[in-house]
Amino acid sequence: MELGLIGLGKMGGNMRERIRRAGHTVVGFDHNAEIADVHSLGELVESLSGPRVVWVMVPAGDATQATIDELATLLSPGDVVVDGGNSRWTDDEAHAAQLAERGIGFVDCGVSGGVWGLENGYALMYGGDAADVAKVQPVFDALKPEGEFGAVHAGKVGAGHFAKMVHNGIEYAMMQAFAEGWELLEAVDSVTDVREVFRSWQEGTVIRSWLLDLAVRALDDDEHLASLRGFAQDSGEGRWTVEAAIDHAVPLPAITASLFARFASRQDDAPQMKMIAALRNQFGGHAVESTQK
Amino acid sequence: MELGLIGLGKMGGNMRERIRRAGHTVVGFDHNAEIADVHSLGELVESLSGPRVVWVMVPAGDATQATIDELATLLSPGDVVVDGGNSRWTDDEAHAAQLAERGIGFVDCGVSGGVWGLENGYALMYGGDAADVAKVQPVFDALKPEGEFGAVHAGKVGAGHFAKMVHNGIEYAMMQAFAEGWELLEAVDSVTDVREVFRSWQEGTVIRSWLLDLAVRALDDDEHLASLRGFAQDSGEGRWTVEAAIDHAVPLPAITASLFARFASRQDDAPQMKMIAALRNQFGGHAVESTQK
Amino acid sequence: MELGLIGLGKMGGNMRERIRRAGHTVVGFDHNAEIADVHSLGELVESLSGPRVVWVMVPAGDATQATIDELATLLSPGDVVVDGGNSRWTDDEAHAAQLAERGIGFVDCGVSGGVWGLENGYALMYGGDAADVAKVQPVFDALKPEGEFGAVHAGKVGAGHFAKMVHNGIEYAMMQAFAEGWELLEAVDSVTDVREVFRSWQEGTVIRSWLLDLAVRALDDDEHLASLRGFAQDSGEGRWTVEAAIDHAVPLPAITASLFARFASRQDDAPQMKMIAALRNQFGGHAVESTQK
Amino acid sequence: MELGLIGLGKMGGNMRERIRRAGHTVVGFDHNAEIADVHSLGELVESLSGPRVVWVMVPAGDATQATIDELATLLSPGDVVVDGGNSRWTDDEAHAAQLAERGIGFVDCGVSGGVWGLENGYALMYGGDAADVAKVQPVFDALKPEGEFGAVHAGKVGAGHFAKMVHNGIEYAMMQAFAEGWELLEAVDSVTDVREVFRSWQEGTVIRSWLLDLAVRALDDDEHLASLRGFAQDSGEGRWTVEAAIDHAVPLPAITASLFARFASRQDDAPQMKMIAALRNQFGGHAVESTQK
Repeated sequence: MELGLIGLGKMGGNMRERIRRAGHTVVGFDHNAEIADVHSLGELVESLSGPRVVWVMVPAGDATQATIDELATLLSPGDVVVDGGNSRWTDDEAHAAQLAERGIGFVDCGVSGGVWGLENGYALMYGGDAADVAKVQPVFDALKPEGEFGAVHAGKVGAGHFAKMVHNGIEYAMMQAFAEGWELLEAVDSVTDVREVFRSWQEGTVIRSWLLDLAVRALDDDEHLASLRGFAQDSGEGRWTVEAAIDHAVPLPAITASLFARFASRQDDAPQMKMIAALRNQFGGHAVESTQK
Repeated sequence: MELGLIGLGKMGGNMRERIRRAGHTVVGFDHNAEIADVHSLGELVESLSGPRVVWVMVPAGDATQATIDELATLLSPGDVVVDGGNSRWTDDEAHAAQLAERGIGFVDCGVSGGVWGLENGYALMYGGDAADVAKVQPVFDALKPEGEFGAVHAGKVGAGHFAKMVHNGIEYAMMQAFAEGWELLEAVDSVTDVREVFRSWQEGTVIRSWLLDLAVRALDDDEHLASLRGFAQDSGEGRWTVEAAIDHAVPLPAITASLFARFASRQDDAPQMKMIAALRNQFGGHAVESTQK
Repeated sequence: MELGLIGLGKMGGNMRERIRRAGHTVVGFDHNAEIADVHSLGELVESLSGPRVVWVMVPAGDATQATIDELATLLSPGDVVVDGGNSRWTDDEAHAAQLAERGIGFVDCGVSGGVWGLENGYALMYGGDAADVAKVQPVFDALKPEGEFGAVHAGKVGAGHFAKMVHNGIEYAMMQAFAEGWELLEAVDSVTDVREVFRSWQEGTVIRSWLLDLAVRALDDDEHLASLRGFAQDSGEGRWTVEAAIDHAVPLPAITASLFARFASRQDDAPQMKMIAALRNQFGGHAVESTQK
Repeated sequence: MELGLIGLGKMGGNMRERIRRAGHTVVGFDHNAEIADVHSLGELVESLSGPRVVWVMVPAGDATQATIDELATLLSPGDVVVDGGNSRWTDDEAHAAQLAERGIGFVDCGVSGGVWGLENGYALMYGGDAADVAKVQPVFDALKPEGEFGAVHAGKVGAGHFAKMVHNGIEYAMMQAFAEGWELLEAVDSVTDVREVFRSWQEGTVIRSWLLDLAVRALDDDEHLASLRGFAQDSGEGRWTVEAAIDHAVPLPAITASLFARFASRQDDAPQMKMIAALRNQFGGHAVESTQK
């Protein structure tokens, strides 16, 4: 089939390659003309025969909105837009409604795979009407990993991004689990080779997992991670997961703790701990450490 | 080689079988005479040629202590005792010192594998002197999974149980991660098939893992887990992990949250939340729910 | 001065009384005609001489929005609207902008005090331009507690509700602190009179506070809180506090834990703990408790 | 009455003064001869008429144990030892049993008050047999604050230190509550005077408390706490509170979060966050920050 693909960055570029390897035609657009196949959204739309499928793979928020705004004016009834970026699930319904006014279908798709996706395939979670999903199915089949798993029609519009968001929330807590365990093992004298403990866990344990394999790989590069700063960004999806949980009154203590650990890692000198120090000093005369030393 | 194995319960019985399949001789003792090969520790010790290796696989605490007390009087210098039970790592040094007075070696070994161990092998983490470990090595090789992973000499006496304990702490937080994510997905209307979302995650995602596979298996048995109560025991090792972290001033927010979630799951009517309700009523006149309704 | 007051419920009714006791004229409107002084917003506006100050004390969200919509059509340039309800701080800027189009000023005001406010005064946190605040000042002075504390011009529009929201977030964690401590004291055998321990803490301790006084009062009513269910609602402001923290990447572990404890208290059979039970059963053959017992 | 007081440091010295002001005789011993009244425990014991009451106010652990060991050999049946230090509650039963062998009574007493105690009185929580407590009562009455509160016979031996420990656990979470709220207020632009917000909360709010008063005092010294490092020690009692909760399967999410926040505040470059950074880099190619910049 033919696919229009907007956004050829780290993710989009590899996805174009994987879809082409599966025998499909991909017309790619990017603001970077050197990597683009066409040089405007208009040209992209004209180059596809209908019903068209156009996959948007640009940053969530303004860039995605602007692209959908333009596609709404260019596409025809019966065409389908897929938002494969990291949009907040709450944006999806608005995008679907905006496009539906023109008779254009909408499918939201969460994509996992990162730098490993080109070779191993991308995990896909998508939401939308069955008829719209069916038009995109050959592309989903090309992108997904081989085997029976890796792609799911999760539900209505928004369900794809929601499922991907929850995947990332789970990922936060799993990473935090390994990180906490690793720090504790490194802290005790009796355990003399933490890296080998991690390596051994890759078989026969309850915690064997791809993240564990990656941890071993990281420790093989740098046994005590001495070259790294203890500093972690967060990408938005962890925040949204907590917000969604609050909306539904679902307690998420481990995932939220993982998010907060990242926030705290980015504070050189946490304001809240200044207040703790100040209060201890006030009531107990406990020594404080001054910043002027 | 020959091994004396004390404790032939769910774990020990399967371990005897797996070691025998590897061609070793196992003399097993259990208080249940029907499954025992010998009927006293004395008989067990006499039936082995030296240097003897005796593996203790009985409940941690009093039962393990009593067994080691008796072995200390029966074994000879150069023999080795392995504690493969779930002992607290802090017991190991005392056991090693007690046996060392008699010239008997000691190795602690954390064993993971559960009901899957007989077929897939057991993950093993052991601690002790290299010479003692060497005497047990053929048994470790028989028990561990095939392949290059699954067994590790983690360090000094105590390191085996410590590493296994941390493994379990990580396990707590990973389970909590999937549990939180599952509850959130079940809470939203747009995601219409949570089980298929979980199933799809088994390939191509960051969170693919054995625990995820087990979650899918559980959901295949009972799609919404309607037949289960939301009630979880804890086995001691999660508690010890948090205590060890406190000893070393290591923050473990996700693992501790997971432990506390289990505590809370066992409270029908949490006392602390009665106090919250009482305080809200005091200052705001907020309605309370009476137990007498 | 003259004040129009819209909403004469539990809070508004008492506030009318307190303002009148200070010698001001209050014209109150409520949908309940029996307690209202006037019977429409139009009548209320006409009964005040300009520049008018109208205080809105109705439920946040739709009711507040509808009231502001109507006031925007009735009031005149130079008048001021005060939103004293529990609006989300993010609504305040929109309300201010909407009214500013008509030349009407806007002040947001967080009010604390509950059932105790009539006698003790209400703590007030307000935000807005100094000129607008000045028009409301006599009312603030009437409502606030005697003494030098209890009222603050916290900053720009939105700052009042934001400060009140954070007050409530702090309140959540303080309540949780006492609740956790109380449950732990109740759990140990050696402490034979927990209520007297709490009572004693009211002087000389670091934790002496009004909430502690209220806890003692609650325990005097019911020593072990046996008549209450361990069940706590949340009012929205705890949720907003966590959301605001996420927006600003501020870690709030204690406040969030307190919010989640309330969520969990409302779950009879937590779905996430069903998943924990299911996983334990899958890998370890651990017994599960069935709902069919 | 007469009291022997061992340990005349910051706490003990002020306590001697307060007890003397109440008209009692205090014979004080300290290793610092300049501040001591007598120069050995033997001299202290001889200078008191029986039945003697000796109050131990030295660091918990080895120093307290050594003092009790020596007193056990010097005192007579019917005398009473009070441990007023910060001993772990689990030590109290052993001390009571050790002294009981000689017919000597034992009372444990948690003391709160810090640098404010001399003037305002000390909050006291004590445990032990009624007959032993009665012998110490005049001293308790001298130390406690004026008024009806501030001292409690909490229960059996150990109950005093347990109650004080829980007091400190509650204190940790209350401090964290204010600290989190303060950081969040400081993070938003609309709130232009956080210090005045805190000041205003001292009347009419739910969260009015001595800790709030101290926070205002600290902010008056240094409005943004700019001169302090965000670094907080912990004194042991927070750790013990969490350990006691684990022993009793009581979830303490807010108190534990507060303890972990202190641990984290003391890590310049948290090892666990290095692992998070490493994993993000492994699966996503996310940039890491090197320590070699």
